Amino acid sequence: MTLTPADDGFAERLASSLPDNTLRRAEPRYLEEPRGRWHGCSGWVALPRSTDEASTILRACNDARVGVLPFGGGTGLVGGQIAPEGPAPLLISLERMNAIRAVYPQENVALAEAGAVLSDVQEAAREAGRLFPLSLASEGTARIGGLLATNAGGVNVLRYGNARDQVLGLEAVLPDGTIWHGLKRLRKDNTGYDLRNLLIGAEGTLGLITAAALKLAPIPAATGTALFTVAGPAAALELLAIARDQLGEGISAFELISRQGLDFLTEALPELRQPWPEPPDWCVLVELGLARGLDPEAALEELFAAGLEAELVSDGIVAQSEQQRQDFWAIRERIPEANRVIGAIASHDISLPLGAVPEFIARGAPVLARLGEFRINCFGHLGDGNLHYNVFPAPGRRREEHVNQRDEIKHAVHDLVHEMDGSVSAEHGIGRLKVEDLERYGDPAKLAAMRAIKAALDPRGIMNPGAVLRG
Amino acid sequence: MTLTPADDGFAERLASSLPDNTLRRAEPRYLEEPRGRWHGCSGWVALPRSTDEASTILRACNDARVGVLPFGGGTGLVGGQIAPEGPAPLLISLERMNAIRAVYPQENVALAEAGAVLSDVQEAAREAGRLFPLSLASEGTARIGGLLATNAGGVNVLRYGNARDQVLGLEAVLPDGTIWHGLKRLRKDNTGYDLRNLLIGAEGTLGLITAAALKLAPIPAATGTALFTVAGPAAALELLAIARDQLGEGISAFELISRQGLDFLTEALPELRQPWPEPPDWCVLVELGLARGLDPEAALEELFAAGLEAELVSDGIVAQSEQQRQDFWAIRERIPEANRVIGAIASHDISLPLGAVPEFIARGAPVLARLGEFRINCFGHLGDGNLHYNVFPAPGRRREEHVNQRDEIKHAVHDLVHEMDGSVSAEHGIGRLKVEDLERYGDPAKLAAMRAIKAALDPRGIMNPGAVLRG
Repeated sequence: MTLTPADDGFAERLASSLPDNTLRRAEPRYLEEPRGRWHGCSGWVALPRSTDEASTILRACNDARVGVLPFGGGTGLVGGQIAPEGPAPLLISLERMNAIRAVYPQENVALAEAGAVLSDVQEAAREAGRLFPLSLASEGTARIGGLLATNAGGVNVLRYGNARDQVLGLEAVLPDGTIWHGLKRLRKDNTGYDLRNLLIGAEGTLGLITAAALKLAPIPAATGTALFTVAGPAAALELLAIARDQLGEGISAFELISRQGLDFLTEALPELRQPWPEPPDWCVLVELGLARGLDPEAALEELFAAGLEAELVSDGIVAQSEQQRQDFWAIRERIPEANRVIGAIASHDISLPLGAVPEFIARGAPVLARLGEFRINCFGHLGDGNLHYNVFPAPGRRREEHVNQRDEIKHAVHDLVHEMDGSVSAEHGIGRLKVEDLERYGDPAKLAAMRAIKAALDPRGIMNPGAVLRG
Repeated sequence: MTLTPADDGFAERLASSLPDNTLRRAEPRYLEEPRGRWHGCSGWVALPRSTDEASTILRACNDARVGVLPFGGGTGLVGGQIAPEGPAPLLISLERMNAIRAVYPQENVALAEAGAVLSDVQEAAREAGRLFPLSLASEGTARIGGLLATNAGGVNVLRYGNARDQVLGLEAVLPDGTIWHGLKRLRKDNTGYDLRNLLIGAEGTLGLITAAALKLAPIPAATGTALFTVAGPAAALELLAIARDQLGEGISAFELISRQGLDFLTEALPELRQPWPEPPDWCVLVELGLARGLDPEAALEELFAAGLEAELVSDGIVAQSEQQRQDFWAIRERIPEANRVIGAIASHDISLPLGAVPEFIARGAPVLARLGEFRINCFGHLGDGNLHYNVFPAPGRRREEHVNQRDEIKHAVHDLVHEMDGSVSAEHGIGRLKVEDLERYGDPAKLAAMRAIKAALDPRGIMNPGAVLRG
């Protein structure tokens, strides 16, 4: 079933049924992605101002069998927003639909259009005395539609869950142009199949999310942040279990950082302050957000004492100011930037059952050593079992020398993840980068069900063709 | 497309490919439901001991186009587990698959088979020093498979979410007998469509859940329970907002009770202790579960003081012992029992946007008064916007006198709920009772998508025929 390209003739016909300036030629920013691996084929972008206009656009594409490429903030790391080949799709960007339609502080709900930028939603919640807990490095650019379509993760999943856990209702345009009015502000609604969670995480292959009813949370009364030097990943996990026993749901983030990551920071970003005379082999960044009446600094000191007693931690620094807190977070959040300077051969966004993380780290290094001499920067959201496991050339070597090894490295890492009941895409999604991985590691019954659902909801195959499932 | 009945010939053929005693004639307990509205057609029940046996059974049913009726604990209130008409389906009960396969305290995960009874899962979690927060009146009978298939709610949704929020992974048999091995213990896994949430809440119409990886939570360090007399539903909501500001995520339950409910308790269950000399018009049962270092009793007193200051509450009693705590909960949890004694004309399990609850309650009474003289017992999970809105005859009248009014009462209540953006099935599901309501109030785009998904995943229409969607 071949799609028709979104050529000038199609664009002109579609434009005639829409207000002026709804369509234009796609500028380069719509055709690039953060890692520079792919370049989109040139073509047209539609910029609807309303859900009805989005509906008109999808209906026309469906009728003409023209592919549709939903484009959010363009920050995706797996190529879900880029079509490098095939008949040119029509890009559709909801950047003009960026209103935060309402905030209901008493209900802990905000209604945001899909084009709203994450940091704007966070800000609107804050102004209402509430927290929108979804938080990740690209939050100043990423838009709600893309964040939900990819079920984004980030640093607060341990406490608040993934993007899907922040959603009460959705409004969306289905592939044939019909609008699903599902923007409900309900905490309980058992009226039929969970279409909401089906669209969330489908990466734009089943429909176009246009707005969402988002859950807000109370803002913790007090926050505390610390860096603990731990004996290793297993010790870090034991420390997390102790923290949970002591603090219940008060742990907002629990991030693992290795010596390799700190050395990369020293090399690539020497201006960044690191608080140790000598970087530790392993450390965790712990953030607490506690209720009124509790002192995070005291809680972190108590946690440190328990960790010391159990021989899990050897050193600890509790942030004494907002500046120091930001410095600690900069260490964690600028690791990807340092990685780009050093130049990874292969990057892996994986997750494992929490208890299996130490074994995976222990087994990963020798598996890779059999393929050559590499440096591994393993860091990430330990509380979620989510590691960013990135492989770099040995000192003095260049990534270009290893281009041919990329696939074997990826397969070695992913084979091990799969063997240990993990996931080869924890938070970034499948996009176009991991279509083959999904075919290789995905459960056959689930894949068959996914194909049946895709054919049922998008029978003409127009939605984000080539993403997630092979066209 | 007509289904074939699960007659003796079919049962005997199927039995021959399974171990002895896997099939037997369905005893009466499989053919009854709690409200006594329907009676199932007699027939056969299959009791597999393993997922492979369940797969064999579904494959045979699919091949022969025999309907399959998944049966959990039999506690559903909307007839999802009862087939009163049509070709007799094969009942399938997973009561022999009731193992709790493993508990991982460090990961906060338990693996339970679908036949495990909820209270057994709660107990296994408790033994590991963890909490499985799903809790509802029928927890001593309801089984995990049914609880997930119906996305059960209960009293802790405010804090911990619905049943679907307790699930990390599923194992399930799809209608053609293929097994989906999705029993992952992962906190983040973005590898394709969310089949898990599609099966959860589908009420057995898309597949048979055989096991689940369940999330556990920390046990709160200290619990406190109080009954506050409030000025009305709006005051109760304001009190909830204050409680959230003061206590963050520490509120485990926030239940609304009306004078009518207390009067029914007095009438139907006179032995039940009520702690007031005179029952209040409206009260809320508040339960806190707080982290170490916080005193729930002091927190409840502080909340009461703030509520008094804002003229929201006029009286309050904090439970001073576990016995008193249980007495308070008995008041809330035995209301349904009193309701059964009094005899409702119509019961409604509805939800509303939180902020709309007071207006709904204010508008509901005059809407019903236009239809006749009734008593309304409105109670429920206020923190979730979930009301059980039950309509009774005036004193001295019998429900039988109003049988003809049932439908008009239901439509009046549901029309108002729908107009106010609520749901006509908050936590009980659609089953067979609310198929017509779903057709009447459901979003057309969503209904079309549901029918397409049903046809795609269960093309022969064997799974729980007649439930949720008309066959």
